[in-house]
Amino acid sequence: MAEFIAARDWQQHHTPKNLSASIAIEAAELLEHFQWLTDEQAAAALQDADKLSAVADEMADVVIYALSLANALDVDVSEAVLGKLERNEKRFPAEEWRGRA
Amino acid sequence: MAEFIAARDWQQHHTPKNLSASIAIEAAELLEHFQWLTDEQAAAALQDADKLSAVADEMADVVIYALSLANALDVDVSEAVLGKLERNEKRFPAEEWRGRA
Amino acid sequence: MAEFIAARDWQQHHTPKNLSASIAIEAAELLEHFQWLTDEQAAAALQDADKLSAVADEMADVVIYALSLANALDVDVSEAVLGKLERNEKRFPAEEWRGRA
Amino acid sequence: MAEFIAARDWQQHHTPKNLSASIAIEAAELLEHFQWLTDEQAAAALQDADKLSAVADEMADVVIYALSLANALDVDVSEAVLGKLERNEKRFPAEEWRGRA
Repeated sequence: MAEFIAARDWQQHHTPKNLSASIAIEAAELLEHFQWLTDEQAAAALQDADKLSAVADEMADVVIYALSLANALDVDVSEAVLGKLERNEKRFPAEEWRGRA
Repeated sequence: MAEFIAARDWQQHHTPKNLSASIAIEAAELLEHFQWLTDEQAAAALQDADKLSAVADEMADVVIYALSLANALDVDVSEAVLGKLERNEKRFPAEEWRGRA
Repeated sequence: MAEFIAARDWQQHHTPKNLSASIAIEAAELLEHFQWLTDEQAAAALQDADKLSAVADEMADVVIYALSLANALDVDVSEAVLGKLERNEKRFPAEEWRGRA
Repeated sequence: MAEFIAARDWQQHHTPKNLSASIAIEAAELLEHFQWLTDEQAAAALQDADKLSAVADEMADVVIYALSLANALDVDVSEAVLGKLERNEKRFPAEEWRGRA
């Protein structure tokens, strides 16, 4: 990721604000695939390999910009994710949620 | 990730549409940190450890939902990201971009 | 709208980029109300007057930033909307869509 | 607006959740015009009539979906906006903000 960006001199544009905006933009492109579909229609549409691949592609764009942001902030993604999951363990106790609709 | 979701019976809500909406929502919370700041003001604000940690937290939320979506779609994230980077290598040749403002 | 902004010297922050980001941020807060709900659950939730009022409030924020953007761009909103609707009349002929599921 | 939707039988898709998602999607398309630009570069780009018109078009899409949501919720937009502005008058007193950078 970092090499890809550096090889194109794109760090100058990779400010935290621009990367956050980019994640929002890619997330919207992902959401657009399901804009007018019910969950059932979405599940059916994703049976199509081309559709699934297009959706996976937008998901990859989100991840790519998230990793770029981690690089720009010099933050360890795994650490941030694991820290968040640990706090969520306490905030949403499994025994309270299991079995709920 | 998958264990955390399964332990709370949250798969039922983790439809591709809901997860895409969730990524968009978290991306907006991330962007909100920089809403009225110039890139210079954002860089200054991020010198503060608490601010940086709050931003990293929102970034973690984006990644968490992206990984949840990958699980829901049964797609390999690394593969999707590497595939996209490979195509971007050709679409944006390094030699054309290097040195550009 | 314009008076409200001018009275607080906020034009300096009301750049097209910041206002576009602000619309995206408010849109996500609106969407958050429905994040994990089916359409049926959302309809039920909106029977509650407080919920409806909270949703209307987020919608108002979207409109407020959209009007602020129109002011910043010196564009007439009504004209832009009517122009768009006219083009959509041709792009999506009523007789082709009426009766479709 | 309402006539346009009714003539195409689109009310069935115009649920509050779908319309909120649609606003977020259009907001992201608006933001995309400024994704990698500084405020100065954005201002320069908007000197171009075609660019301005493309941006106004995305803004119109945001407004169109916001009005559609107001119709779906049976909420008066002007009332919601004026109510919000009134509360903002108190929340952000002009005399505290005037003259601040």
